[in-house]
Amino acid sequence: MIANISLNLPAVIEFGAGKINTLNLHLQGCRKIFLLVDKPVFPKIEPLVREIESSGKEVFVSTEVVPEPPIDTLAGLLLPVRDFSPDAVVGIGGGSTMDLAKLVSVLFTGEQQIHEVIGINNLGKRNIRLALASTTSGTGSEVTPIAVLTDTREKLKKGVVSPHLVADVTIVDPELTLGLPAPVTAATGMDAMTHCIEAYTNRFAHPVIDNLALQGIALIAANLETAVSDSGNLEARTAMALGSLYGGLCLGPVNTAAVHALAYPLGGEFNVPHGVANSVLLPFVMDFNLSECSGKYAQVARALGVTTGGSDKIMAEEGIQRIKGLSARCGIPKGLKQLAIPEAAIPAMAKAAMLVTRLLDNNPRKVELKDAEAIFRAAFRGAEA
Amino acid sequence: MIANISLNLPAVIEFGAGKINTLNLHLQGCRKIFLLVDKPVFPKIEPLVREIESSGKEVFVSTEVVPEPPIDTLAGLLLPVRDFSPDAVVGIGGGSTMDLAKLVSVLFTGEQQIHEVIGINNLGKRNIRLALASTTSGTGSEVTPIAVLTDTREKLKKGVVSPHLVADVTIVDPELTLGLPAPVTAATGMDAMTHCIEAYTNRFAHPVIDNLALQGIALIAANLETAVSDSGNLEARTAMALGSLYGGLCLGPVNTAAVHALAYPLGGEFNVPHGVANSVLLPFVMDFNLSECSGKYAQVARALGVTTGGSDKIMAEEGIQRIKGLSARCGIPKGLKQLAIPEAAIPAMAKAAMLVTRLLDNNPRKVELKDAEAIFRAAFRGAEA
Repeated sequence: MIANISLNLPAVIEFGAGKINTLNLHLQGCRKIFLLVDKPVFPKIEPLVREIESSGKEVFVSTEVVPEPPIDTLAGLLLPVRDFSPDAVVGIGGGSTMDLAKLVSVLFTGEQQIHEVIGINNLGKRNIRLALASTTSGTGSEVTPIAVLTDTREKLKKGVVSPHLVADVTIVDPELTLGLPAPVTAATGMDAMTHCIEAYTNRFAHPVIDNLALQGIALIAANLETAVSDSGNLEARTAMALGSLYGGLCLGPVNTAAVHALAYPLGGEFNVPHGVANSVLLPFVMDFNLSECSGKYAQVARALGVTTGGSDKIMAEEGIQRIKGLSARCGIPKGLKQLAIPEAAIPAMAKAAMLVTRLLDNNPRKVELKDAEAIFRAAFRGAEA
Repeated sequence: MIANISLNLPAVIEFGAGKINTLNLHLQGCRKIFLLVDKPVFPKIEPLVREIESSGKEVFVSTEVVPEPPIDTLAGLLLPVRDFSPDAVVGIGGGSTMDLAKLVSVLFTGEQQIHEVIGINNLGKRNIRLALASTTSGTGSEVTPIAVLTDTREKLKKGVVSPHLVADVTIVDPELTLGLPAPVTAATGMDAMTHCIEAYTNRFAHPVIDNLALQGIALIAANLETAVSDSGNLEARTAMALGSLYGGLCLGPVNTAAVHALAYPLGGEFNVPHGVANSVLLPFVMDFNLSECSGKYAQVARALGVTTGGSDKIMAEEGIQRIKGLSARCGIPKGLKQLAIPEAAIPAMAKAAMLVTRLLDNNPRKVELKDAEAIFRAAFRGAEA
């Protein structure tokens, strides 16, 4: 029997080249806009900001975005935004920008403090409009109920999960991703791939999400290399944007698993960008999971384009090889060594990852402390594609 | 290149058995609820109404629903609702109930008159909350931006299309469909199948929607007969509810085509229920379209479970036979004769259908007046399964 599922979705999803120009239309009725935008993206959207202003709205632009945003970065945004008192928040950028915009849109009122809202469903209602546009493909943050912060004191990534973080309006415009540097394209693309794979093979998988996940895997597998090697290829960028949107839609209802759990300490401790951490770890977690989900990995392999046939196990193994090959060809770092992570840090990282039970519980194979260590050690040595 | 697409979605979709019990949660902050509910469904939800009331909300219940609702039925609801002045409208029922609830939620204020809003994007903003729960599988109205009324004077169905008709909250609870009579289960199920097929083979088809459409076709094909013959089978009802939800999601961004256009006069002129009209016409329009879309019909056939193989044309023809067989086994009336429609009415019906250009323009094969007549004549003679 098909299981129950709750979907929290943006009321509007605008997908496609040039769609960022619908933003002002979706801000109808709003008068004061707080716009948080990635600095390198700002020139692209400056004409749009002028258009919004000339339609009679006041826009407060900030580019105060730090990658893998520390709690202090969020705290620094809240006071000026409270003074401005917007009736809409817009975030245009990668996951860090969108996550900050999401949290600002609820917390700027000062009714709740940051430390109170960490975790699941601790966030009160959002009273103003929230619009997000992604400029990578991608974190999927543009459609998720999740925002992640870095606790620099505890050296841990901390997640806030709430339906009140889901945007009212999401714009996925692949033109905004044109020219994204190859390493960022590769890492964010493999991050999106990871969302799809971890949702599809999730212990709490659901047919509604399986459907999106397999489509996402197929789109990313077929287009990531072109997007990386030919940064202005709009066709590949558009397919990646859709694959990444599908990946994002997987995150709210089903979410990720051990790859993301193990990636947390890489970010919290060594400041490795989220996408890079996930893409480096993905094949090693797949190797670990294989014994428990060869049937599903065989389906993943089919979506990746593997046509060799054979048993589930053979197909699954071929699929993992495909992931390794794709990562290598896209220039994903081979392993933790290449990320300048010392081997001696592994036991502590494994311990830290074991705290992310919210995600580890989703993994198709139970991860013990020794398993986490073993995965990190394999990832340290690095993949042979 | 993947084309642009705009999705207008309910911010919340609750899917699954028992999910109707989340309704009160989603009415948080509302104080005065106008509830429009199908009379036969009311006993099922009476305890829920008591729960909503005992949480301090005032509920005005109406069961004033007429199938294929005439404009006068809507008009009769508006005044009492204006007097009540709700901050939320809830519609629980089939397409007629939900369409009326959608229109009431915007028009009760009196700012716009019914005749002003017929057509596409003529509707102003909705200022109150709208929640819908479907009790058939189904019209898909629970997720569409569409509401259809019957103009009894002009004997025509008239559609209102606007993103402001999309619900804030949609509940798809298959328990509400348990016990739905076999003929209604069959007709609404084949209606949902029609939504999927007409969206997938649409001139404006889109990969995002194709994906939903093919899944919907597969779910309905595999479960409709069981739902019809064993009306309390929750597993089949749940699969049908999901298939129908997918069908509904196809309607906003891509919508239907010639089946729905030709069904309009059957409803407007002869009061044939929408689902019955579509399900009777479906195979005859498929026969007509076959020459233009055998490749896509071959994919439809695969989703229907056809495994014989062969050329696209052979697969497509086998698919159409499957539809005819499924309809026959589910007791769908064989043709227009069985609906007591006189053959002499065909020329006028064909003329009336040609006015529904909004949908005819979507059809994979151009429909001329003589084609519409020929399809009606074939449908008059009826299918040989």
